[in-house]
Amino acid sequence: MSGEAQQPDSAAVREHLEALQDQICQAFEDFERAAGSDTRFDARTLENERGGVGRPRVLSDGLVFERAAVNSTYARGPSLPPAATADRPQLAGRSFEAVSLSLITHPVNPYVPTSHANWRFFIAYDEGGSAPLWWFGGGFDLTPYYPEEEDVVHWHRTAKASCDPFGADLYRRYKEECDEYFHLPHRGEARGVGGLFFDDLTHLGDDEPNSAAAFSRCFAFVRSVSEHYLPAYLPIVERRKGTPYGERHRDFQLYRRGRYAEFNLAFDRGTRYGLQAGARAESVLASMPPRALGRYDWSPETDSEEARLERDFLPPRDWV
Amino acid sequence: MSGEAQQPDSAAVREHLEALQDQICQAFEDFERAAGSDTRFDARTLENERGGVGRPRVLSDGLVFERAAVNSTYARGPSLPPAATADRPQLAGRSFEAVSLSLITHPVNPYVPTSHANWRFFIAYDEGGSAPLWWFGGGFDLTPYYPEEEDVVHWHRTAKASCDPFGADLYRRYKEECDEYFHLPHRGEARGVGGLFFDDLTHLGDDEPNSAAAFSRCFAFVRSVSEHYLPAYLPIVERRKGTPYGERHRDFQLYRRGRYAEFNLAFDRGTRYGLQAGARAESVLASMPPRALGRYDWSPETDSEEARLERDFLPPRDWV
Repeated sequence: MSGEAQQPDSAAVREHLEALQDQICQAFEDFERAAGSDTRFDARTLENERGGVGRPRVLSDGLVFERAAVNSTYARGPSLPPAATADRPQLAGRSFEAVSLSLITHPVNPYVPTSHANWRFFIAYDEGGSAPLWWFGGGFDLTPYYPEEEDVVHWHRTAKASCDPFGADLYRRYKEECDEYFHLPHRGEARGVGGLFFDDLTHLGDDEPNSAAAFSRCFAFVRSVSEHYLPAYLPIVERRKGTPYGERHRDFQLYRRGRYAEFNLAFDRGTRYGLQAGARAESVLASMPPRALGRYDWSPETDSEEARLERDFLPPRDWV
Repeated sequence: MSGEAQQPDSAAVREHLEALQDQICQAFEDFERAAGSDTRFDARTLENERGGVGRPRVLSDGLVFERAAVNSTYARGPSLPPAATADRPQLAGRSFEAVSLSLITHPVNPYVPTSHANWRFFIAYDEGGSAPLWWFGGGFDLTPYYPEEEDVVHWHRTAKASCDPFGADLYRRYKEECDEYFHLPHRGEARGVGGLFFDDLTHLGDDEPNSAAAFSRCFAFVRSVSEHYLPAYLPIVERRKGTPYGERHRDFQLYRRGRYAEFNLAFDRGTRYGLQAGARAESVLASMPPRALGRYDWSPETDSEEARLERDFLPPRDWV
């Protein structure tokens, strides 16, 4: 929180996110190792002619994770893509750098929730020499199939702990933004039990937007949130990965994954941006469920184990 | 082709499409009956307070069709929905009627292709008393997993036969529009082997757009195309439904169904319009595959049976 203000620095953000990517992949592989599986991440480094670097990491058909995708990208170019300047017309034509880390897990065991996280940083340079403009975005959210109250409370308490040092109201605000964003309007239903979501972050508190002080504090905030992802998720995986389940639970998980695919393909800005901007389709769609099951006009029986999700967990609640 | 010009008449279009819906459902149920399955269409009639009528018909878990959805809708209202007037601002605020029939099949046997068809009619009234404006849209297209040349040629020849009486160039034009529309830009790949696609049809040949003569001819054309769907598809189902297959073929079918879901959720205008306009989600998404399988960065082996689809069939070709 203290110390000297740092000039906006995409290399520092990239270094942090790539190191965290390695750490997260390691943690997931440790679960596979412990389960006796020799499944590991498929790790590549893809470079383009403009100096962009993609590091897709995808684990498939593990004993704990049916799929986990943990992808980082570094992009730069002579002018920001249209999708990035739609709401910021004053930035059209500026050269830019963009750094991101996106991850998703599709666990095997239906009692282990799916988790999703993303952190991103954009910086737009001004050839005229004035200070660059930049913004952060990100967050993490949880999508259980057979939720346990203590898991969801732990997830949200950890989210709150990651925010609190930076402002008493931040958790509340970004928790609400998460509930608003991960919402299927055509079903009037949340995607999961939420977490944190923020975008266009150019300052915190009283800092002057886009100042060096604002960058230092925002970067510290993004470090804090991103470093709280594993402490939020790993204990839940540990607790639930051995829960016995049957075909019924697996079918329900595959059914709910269909909803997840609906959201990602039809509503998620990141997925749509990726597909329309010509990103590597296999990387963008690594977030898709490995297997899914559709049912026509099906609802769980009243008071069944499956009915609890929609009734008790998906309507946005105060979890802390 | 001859006879007196008919005033634009949504009731006549509706009558045609609903009768065709019954005929198509009957034909699909006949396959189930012949296979010894007692699976039938779930048939409902849903009415809304404005006089709209939806007739969703969905068959699930048959022996021939894993899912078939054949849905008709009749809608009317005091003003056209925004999606319908985005390209037609002069129609904003006009009262309207809309009639449509949409269908999709997800067969069990991977050697039977998926088929999709849609026909629709919009009419916008002018309270000032001038003649109503109207347009037709529609077509049908085929998505094989293990294609056979003779099936694709039969499909396209039937499509051509449905168009030829109405203009020598129509098949060629609407076949090309179909190739353009059912295209996954992020993969640079066609969804299937195409067929016919037309939209904003207000006249054919030299008829004056939106005239009574134009309506008569366009409606006759839509009747012809829609009545050629069963003759195009049924012989293919009949020929392939008994082809022996194994787990490998089934996996490839589920994998390709994932592509189908990608297109429908991320690109199809009808699906997006339905979801955003607040249509019944279960009806809109009845087109989604009942089961699907995702694979990360997988491609069929060179010269395998699976490689033929992408290599020989998906690149748009002249099939007649």
